[in-house]
Amino acid sequence: MIRVIEGGVTAPRGFRAAGVACGIKRRNPALAEAPLDLALLVADQPASAAAVFTSNKAVAAPVTVSREHLGQSAGMATAIVVNSGCANACTGAAGLAVAREMAGAAAAAVGCPPDQVLVSSTGVIGAPLDIGKVRTGITHAHRELSSHGSDAAMHAIMTTDPFPKSRAVEVTTAAGSFAIGGIAKGSGMIEPRMATMLGFLTTDARVAPAVLQRALKRVADETFNAITVDGECSTNDCVFLMASGASGVEITRDDDPALLEGLRAVAGHLAREIVRGGEGATKLVTVVVTGAASDADAWLAARTVANSPLVKTAIHGGDPNWGRLVAAAGRSGAAFVLDRASVAIGPVQVFAAGVPHDDRADQAADVMKAREMTVTIDLGAGGSHTATMWTCDFSAEYVRINAEYRT
Amino acid sequence: MIRVIEGGVTAPRGFRAAGVACGIKRRNPALAEAPLDLALLVADQPASAAAVFTSNKAVAAPVTVSREHLGQSAGMATAIVVNSGCANACTGAAGLAVAREMAGAAAAAVGCPPDQVLVSSTGVIGAPLDIGKVRTGITHAHRELSSHGSDAAMHAIMTTDPFPKSRAVEVTTAAGSFAIGGIAKGSGMIEPRMATMLGFLTTDARVAPAVLQRALKRVADETFNAITVDGECSTNDCVFLMASGASGVEITRDDDPALLEGLRAVAGHLAREIVRGGEGATKLVTVVVTGAASDADAWLAARTVANSPLVKTAIHGGDPNWGRLVAAAGRSGAAFVLDRASVAIGPVQVFAAGVPHDDRADQAADVMKAREMTVTIDLGAGGSHTATMWTCDFSAEYVRINAEYRT
Repeated sequence: MIRVIEGGVTAPRGFRAAGVACGIKRRNPALAEAPLDLALLVADQPASAAAVFTSNKAVAAPVTVSREHLGQSAGMATAIVVNSGCANACTGAAGLAVAREMAGAAAAAVGCPPDQVLVSSTGVIGAPLDIGKVRTGITHAHRELSSHGSDAAMHAIMTTDPFPKSRAVEVTTAAGSFAIGGIAKGSGMIEPRMATMLGFLTTDARVAPAVLQRALKRVADETFNAITVDGECSTNDCVFLMASGASGVEITRDDDPALLEGLRAVAGHLAREIVRGGEGATKLVTVVVTGAASDADAWLAARTVANSPLVKTAIHGGDPNWGRLVAAAGRSGAAFVLDRASVAIGPVQVFAAGVPHDDRADQAADVMKAREMTVTIDLGAGGSHTATMWTCDFSAEYVRINAEYRT
Repeated sequence: MIRVIEGGVTAPRGFRAAGVACGIKRRNPALAEAPLDLALLVADQPASAAAVFTSNKAVAAPVTVSREHLGQSAGMATAIVVNSGCANACTGAAGLAVAREMAGAAAAAVGCPPDQVLVSSTGVIGAPLDIGKVRTGITHAHRELSSHGSDAAMHAIMTTDPFPKSRAVEVTTAAGSFAIGGIAKGSGMIEPRMATMLGFLTTDARVAPAVLQRALKRVADETFNAITVDGECSTNDCVFLMASGASGVEITRDDDPALLEGLRAVAGHLAREIVRGGEGATKLVTVVVTGAASDADAWLAARTVANSPLVKTAIHGGDPNWGRLVAAAGRSGAAFVLDRASVAIGPVQVFAAGVPHDDRADQAADVMKAREMTVTIDLGAGGSHTATMWTCDFSAEYVRINAEYRT
């Protein structure tokens, strides 16, 4: 049984968090307080750790360092330190040194080996990260660490997200209960030069690093990797998961349904919240592809449809335009049989087995007035493979945000 | 030597064309004349013919029929018949029958076997094509055929293109001169439910069908297939090329530089005009990728950059945002080495060997004020492979056009 609870990343036992202001983000003179821009998340004991990183080949320094550390520590971590306001990306050897110093400073404060610290940054690309400010922030954050610190950490990782993102659940199994919590930031791209998605998850289940890694990879593929705002993928994207074991509930298999369902509940919620907070987004759209000849085909078609500018503008305009959905699926590269293909908007089949049903357009248009909707495309390719992605509509506001922002 | 001449598809000897109104397009009550919506292009003698078709698996009926006919006729064609206003796509078995009837009617009028007729349609998807109107149009167009008919044909294939597109050149070789002409329509997507790109080319060089097909494929990959407005690809896209041989100049090799350069001059011009006329486009951008490890990598990176919403909005805003260019190249899947990668906007290197040069941002922003610009991305992957694509900027007008149009 899964039940939503309060507490974010500090809902699971064995974790403390803090978020502080250390001057990396520019201060808004109209506001009394400086913006939070450094988060620290610490496990009471060394925890099993897992991570998924951006597939972008232009990776930022903190991604390189975190990947190294996870390898050196054999999947153990004691702390995660994150700054916002500066991505420490495209900063060359100097940036790499700063990312290592950032991990070292957190390790010194917490009292763990440097390779048990994971680092993450989000913000402007190409600008140097001021390690002095980071050090001050870490010292300050370490003093503030608390088992109620998730909200402060959640705010400290935000850039231009329209709202903060947090979720926690309690998972009850025959062997007892454990919790999973998470915070995330999404795709506000006004201040940084591109979207960065960061997710930080914790659990108090006891899970070995290798099992945790496989479970995270599997769930991330169905959640964080199944969302798109504009098909872009940043230099800094990462999702970290730490398992403290403090609940005493042991998970030994990466296909354990309690662990997977719990992770899906947290990661799925955070991922959909990221789409909902996408730049200029007014609608959350679930794209379901069925009838695919293979899993790869199902994902290919879902990704192409979810990123199609013509599909996304049609959704913005509330237009039940099955032609654009058919064309996007057709050009995706997935096996596609037009005469057996179907398109439904919500429950309304506007195109069935190759035949348009434009008489149902008004019904479908009604479905599209809602802020959330599902479009289902059957590829007619004879297979039973499916894929589900989440996307948003494409508005003039997206263009305004991304065109009028001058670096 | 290549010289631009007048005359479009009827510049080469041995071709006549016509464009007529037959009532497929809705009439604008404010205008005295009905819009042209049927074009006929006829060779005086059976001509060598070549074609490239959409890669979309949801192909329209005329694409299926033209492909069949080219196979049956072993690459010979006498006529091309095209209607605008109705795409005859997603129309099932009935649509296929109509496309065959359309070819049959043109064959009867011209006096050639049906499989020597290529057919093409552009316009609304899912609506039936009225074969009665098509027959009337063919009869009328056949009477109007003229060696000065290219302009009428050019207008008859347009849908919502902001301007018509035509080009012809004279190619002078040691063996004599021949001409190549072409007309095209682009990506106005207001009236049809998606972009359709059609190109019709003629030459009076004497070229065997197999040679003509290979030359067309090669040049189309560098021109029509190297442009993008929004990454979409229609059910109806096609480019046809007919060679009459009337100049007496014989071309025997598909790598003949005179043929290839002539085709590039015509197809390249038409392709760039299609981008310039893209929905909401205000700028024509040449994307050059260098330093790629393979040709495939160069094209992959060029295509990803040319379709990146963040790159295209930055160009719209005149923002020399090398970060978005680096990120798009980095996520493309092509081998990419950040520390050796470079980005230039026009001649201004804003990112060189992994290091930002933001002091040059004002210079680069000046380059971006022009209506045409080149961005060059060196992948730093050690290879010498390159690719060139053409794209346009991404404006709020694009969203307005595609969201506010309600089917």
